[in-house]
Amino acid sequence: MRNATLTLCFVFLLLCCNQGQQNVTTEPGASADPLPSWSDGPSKKAIVDFITKTTTDGDPDFIPVADRIACFDNDGTLWAEQPLYFQFLHALDRVKELASQHPEWKKQEPFKSVLAGDLRGALAGGEKSLMQLIAATQTGMSSDEFEAQVKYWISTATHPQSKRPFTEMIYQPMLELLTYLRNSGYKTFIVSGGEEGFMCAWADETYGIPREQIIGTLMRSAYEVVNDTPRIMRKAELDLLNDGKNKPVGIYNQIGKRPVFTAGNSDGDYEMLQWTTTAPGYPRFGMIVHHTDSVREWAYDRNSNIGHLEKGLDDAAKYKWQVVDMKRDWKEIFPPVDR
Amino acid sequence: MRNATLTLCFVFLLLCCNQGQQNVTTEPGASADPLPSWSDGPSKKAIVDFITKTTTDGDPDFIPVADRIACFDNDGTLWAEQPLYFQFLHALDRVKELASQHPEWKKQEPFKSVLAGDLRGALAGGEKSLMQLIAATQTGMSSDEFEAQVKYWISTATHPQSKRPFTEMIYQPMLELLTYLRNSGYKTFIVSGGEEGFMCAWADETYGIPREQIIGTLMRSAYEVVNDTPRIMRKAELDLLNDGKNKPVGIYNQIGKRPVFTAGNSDGDYEMLQWTTTAPGYPRFGMIVHHTDSVREWAYDRNSNIGHLEKGLDDAAKYKWQVVDMKRDWKEIFPPVDR
Repeated sequence: MRNATLTLCFVFLLLCCNQGQQNVTTEPGASADPLPSWSDGPSKKAIVDFITKTTTDGDPDFIPVADRIACFDNDGTLWAEQPLYFQFLHALDRVKELASQHPEWKKQEPFKSVLAGDLRGALAGGEKSLMQLIAATQTGMSSDEFEAQVKYWISTATHPQSKRPFTEMIYQPMLELLTYLRNSGYKTFIVSGGEEGFMCAWADETYGIPREQIIGTLMRSAYEVVNDTPRIMRKAELDLLNDGKNKPVGIYNQIGKRPVFTAGNSDGDYEMLQWTTTAPGYPRFGMIVHHTDSVREWAYDRNSNIGHLEKGLDDAAKYKWQVVDMKRDWKEIFPPVDR
Repeated sequence: MRNATLTLCFVFLLLCCNQGQQNVTTEPGASADPLPSWSDGPSKKAIVDFITKTTTDGDPDFIPVADRIACFDNDGTLWAEQPLYFQFLHALDRVKELASQHPEWKKQEPFKSVLAGDLRGALAGGEKSLMQLIAATQTGMSSDEFEAQVKYWISTATHPQSKRPFTEMIYQPMLELLTYLRNSGYKTFIVSGGEEGFMCAWADETYGIPREQIIGTLMRSAYEVVNDTPRIMRKAELDLLNDGKNKPVGIYNQIGKRPVFTAGNSDGDYEMLQWTTTAPGYPRFGMIVHHTDSVREWAYDRNSNIGHLEKGLDDAAKYKWQVVDMKRDWKEIFPPVDR
């Protein structure tokens, strides 16, 4: 009896210690292989080696928890971005919903083309057209109204080709990488050209990244009090386009320190990758998600408007960025349908 | 022998469990009274009641950890702000240091007055003068250079009256409150009119608030690559003055949700307090630190330029903001000298 009690006691003790540690450093579901959807190969090995050495006490490359900052682009890095950034698909859907309140749109581009189902025509005006669509559909309302709209859309709309909800157009291997980093004491951030308020409506639930760790493009907004009720009004004016050279600025303004791990997929992430991997001190990791799988996803780089990737490929070797070949390196691209 | 082993084993087990819990929810040094520098009275009671009910499982006022967002103004709320916001004292010191490189300052206001030791004259030009001083001393260099300068200043300069380092001009009761909130699962943020880069250089070490949880005034900055070395250059142009109506906007842009606990001390915090305590759903807590102690600190409110507090006092009852009377509510103001 004594022996049994003693054994039980030790078992409980071990469980208890283990529990304590788990609460601190791991999330539930951590398994032996933290990256099961990644094929064995140079990309997976580079990631595992980096995370292992930077989190192993006593290793010369060890990084204290407070400095374990990991930044991820969103469109094309954490979720798909074809045939068009999903935020613009939201805008197109909203144009159709709002059309009855705007009879003038029937004669006015880019709305006319959107309503005629002519995507190419709608985008013919380039950035100006895109900003007009965003301004007409995603501003001029309070932050709460916008959030409710986006939440409704993301829970009901589906991708035009895959017919899956947009929150299932995320990359399973990147979800595993986010979890692996967090289990290893890294704080994960989104640093995206997508608009802050749009992402905040769904990204936490989808990626496990809280709103305060999302850095995005900002529309101007203003605090107003109407009938003694305060609100944040979203204005039809761009404040900061969080892309290219502005990404390191956004990181400086909001995080205040240089990341040690950064992942992107387009030349809009070039400066953020460069800012990360040229920093002195700690080892750094730069990753480019290269869209190479025309069967399971899309294949595009140098000749694409969406997710244009040219400088990044040219300079990947110079900066030792790990180019992840989606076709070769990823066993799965999207989460299983029945998850 | 068995009995002794068993006892030892249980003791170890208890220690071990306790250790595990401590890592998750408490910081070292948490004692039975989480607010030992606060006098018993309405302010301390209101704080303890609020934190207790919002963190007690099953309480109708329970708030999930993810939404436990607490925002603090800095100048006059977490540290002193007299005779002038400390960031401007840094600027004045830098003017004196840089004077030999700027012979023209001898004839040019506000620099001429600063060099003559005439603070009143230096500030006669109001906000314009202040911005000139900031631009001349805290911009035009890289983020790394600026950080090094501020770190040096904060570790060597002393307050003109108390002669203590500025990081000892912080409020001991507020330090205890920050720790108490964090021990209770709250995430603590600074939301200050102080400039982001200035605060990032010392606030983490001083308050235990990491850089990514600091929201401040932003100077424009730009990403540049010189000789293949990237840097963030600080420009002599204001981007966002994080004060008044802009504080809720800064919170929306960076945190993306409404705080449940907000503390300020001046009318520059009015909108942030209003935005917090009028939010639907959870209970909310708004606190005003009222400077009432002319002996141990300073006494000022309605007639002060620095830390002007008028609307906040007028509307505190309407919004049920807890007005903390420094003289009455705080046993200690600053940390003990020998800490």
